[in-house]
Amino acid sequence: MTSPADPVRIALAPVSTDLLRGAITEAGAQVADLDEARALIWDGGPADFPAQLPDSVEWVQLFSAGVEEFFAAGIFERHPNVVFTSAAGAFAKSVAEHTVALLLAGVRYLPEHLRARSWRQKEFFPHIGTLRGATVAVVGAGGIGREVISLLEPFGARIIAVNRSGTPISAPNVAETVPAQRLSEVWSRTDHVVVAAPATADTRHLVGKDELAQLKPHSWVINVARGSLIDTDALVTALEEGTIGGAGLDVTDPEPLPDGHPLWDLPNAIITPHDSNPPHLRTTAFAEHVGANIARFVGGRELIARIDPAAGY
Amino acid sequence: MTSPADPVRIALAPVSTDLLRGAITEAGAQVADLDEARALIWDGGPADFPAQLPDSVEWVQLFSAGVEEFFAAGIFERHPNVVFTSAAGAFAKSVAEHTVALLLAGVRYLPEHLRARSWRQKEFFPHIGTLRGATVAVVGAGGIGREVISLLEPFGARIIAVNRSGTPISAPNVAETVPAQRLSEVWSRTDHVVVAAPATADTRHLVGKDELAQLKPHSWVINVARGSLIDTDALVTALEEGTIGGAGLDVTDPEPLPDGHPLWDLPNAIITPHDSNPPHLRTTAFAEHVGANIARFVGGRELIARIDPAAGY
Repeated sequence: MTSPADPVRIALAPVSTDLLRGAITEAGAQVADLDEARALIWDGGPADFPAQLPDSVEWVQLFSAGVEEFFAAGIFERHPNVVFTSAAGAFAKSVAEHTVALLLAGVRYLPEHLRARSWRQKEFFPHIGTLRGATVAVVGAGGIGREVISLLEPFGARIIAVNRSGTPISAPNVAETVPAQRLSEVWSRTDHVVVAAPATADTRHLVGKDELAQLKPHSWVINVARGSLIDTDALVTALEEGTIGGAGLDVTDPEPLPDGHPLWDLPNAIITPHDSNPPHLRTTAFAEHVGANIARFVGGRELIARIDPAAGY
Repeated sequence: MTSPADPVRIALAPVSTDLLRGAITEAGAQVADLDEARALIWDGGPADFPAQLPDSVEWVQLFSAGVEEFFAAGIFERHPNVVFTSAAGAFAKSVAEHTVALLLAGVRYLPEHLRARSWRQKEFFPHIGTLRGATVAVVGAGGIGREVISLLEPFGARIIAVNRSGTPISAPNVAETVPAQRLSEVWSRTDHVVVAAPATADTRHLVGKDELAQLKPHSWVINVARGSLIDTDALVTALEEGTIGGAGLDVTDPEPLPDGHPLWDLPNAIITPHDSNPPHLRTTAFAEHVGANIARFVGGRELIARIDPAAGY
């Protein structure tokens, strides 16, 4: 517990913005230097992360939702006694909105509409789909996945949620929750797929040739997680051959997608360059997340989005 | 009231489909010839509508949501003792889904993304908007408008609903309901505009030069009602000058939009050729509507979407 005379000291690095300083003080803590801080709000990447943290630091809040680069840099290993939290969930709402924008654009055939220079009504009619009554598999029912499920509810789409444990996701439109190890049963039973799972060794190429082959000619695959979750070559083939309806990709593999890559020219691919959570929306959302987590830290409550080094996210 | 021995007789013309015949019988009525029918399900246009209806006909169900062509053809005038119902509401869900697809595509800057052939992340970032916390004016809070309001709820958009009477629309995200005669107060206070009002003399050019001038550089205007509600020339100017963000138009004036019209080439216009409610989705939705209205007719209850000849829709 804390008192006004003895506020919780929190360091903010590498960039100290007014917005984040405000979030710290509004949550009842005090901005302090790292060597006297109990927590660190780290709004940078892994490259310049402190080699050593003072013993006083119990908790580090990171700025991104996906933290695989911090794993790769060995940062969690190096600080086994520190609790790390990601920004998972903080950016979920913006990314989820983007996800639904991509899915609806696909289902409503907007890419071809945007190429049209004449009134092609009769030609377009059969291509207009609907989410109403459609099944959408949401693979990875974490922060983003759960927001997507919530956004899709009034559209009347039936959700198959996929998470690690298979613990049922409680939402009115979730028809079933499938554990990740039974994911192979999902592909032939869904209309569309939203990929929102963390990038781990287990999820690499989670969507590959065999999975794509079980989807439908009208199926859209939306990836807002990490490019590595989809086998890009297999996806390009499926898009070229029209065995699926299309793909909406906010993340790609490789990323950035190089000029001249076949995905750029495919009429049934929508590429957004990892901009589902742009800086101006991110800053506000992260400050809210930081404020909420500091209030929890100050109050001795469980932190949001605690990283589990054993699980890999 | 009716009994199995004396079913309500309903005529179906000009096209008798299995789907609609099924809807009639499932609702507890019987398909009959027009001269012995108490009601007519008319799935055609005004041109071949019967010049005279038998005295036995009390009710006519029309196939479209907008019935201005039936007004123009004098059909309601010619049958003052007959109750007419439109299909208003029946197609609302599909049109509302299309509306949100267009709005999200605009807000998320998808048209420019679809033109990109390289990873233009930093350039695109500032253009990515969000519905979260944005204000959306829904002009015309009938069947489609109310569905749009419901679809937008989980996105966190704040709705200003506009209807004829100003009778408050009860929905958690509706911040205020404004009567149509105070519509002029709305433009400067909203981020985006959804036009979903019926086409009447009063609503012609409801969105014109003065209205567009009060919107914001990021504002999207979506029209899923009728082309005549927007002054096309004024819209083209606003889009060319970038004084608004863009327009998503499922209906245009003129319609069909002729080849070479400036709207086709504007990068911030999404034209869908009145296909928000394509035949394959319409047929199913209309059959459901017919079934529900026949059940009401058979039960002596109030019909859905009764046309008010005095109001003009």
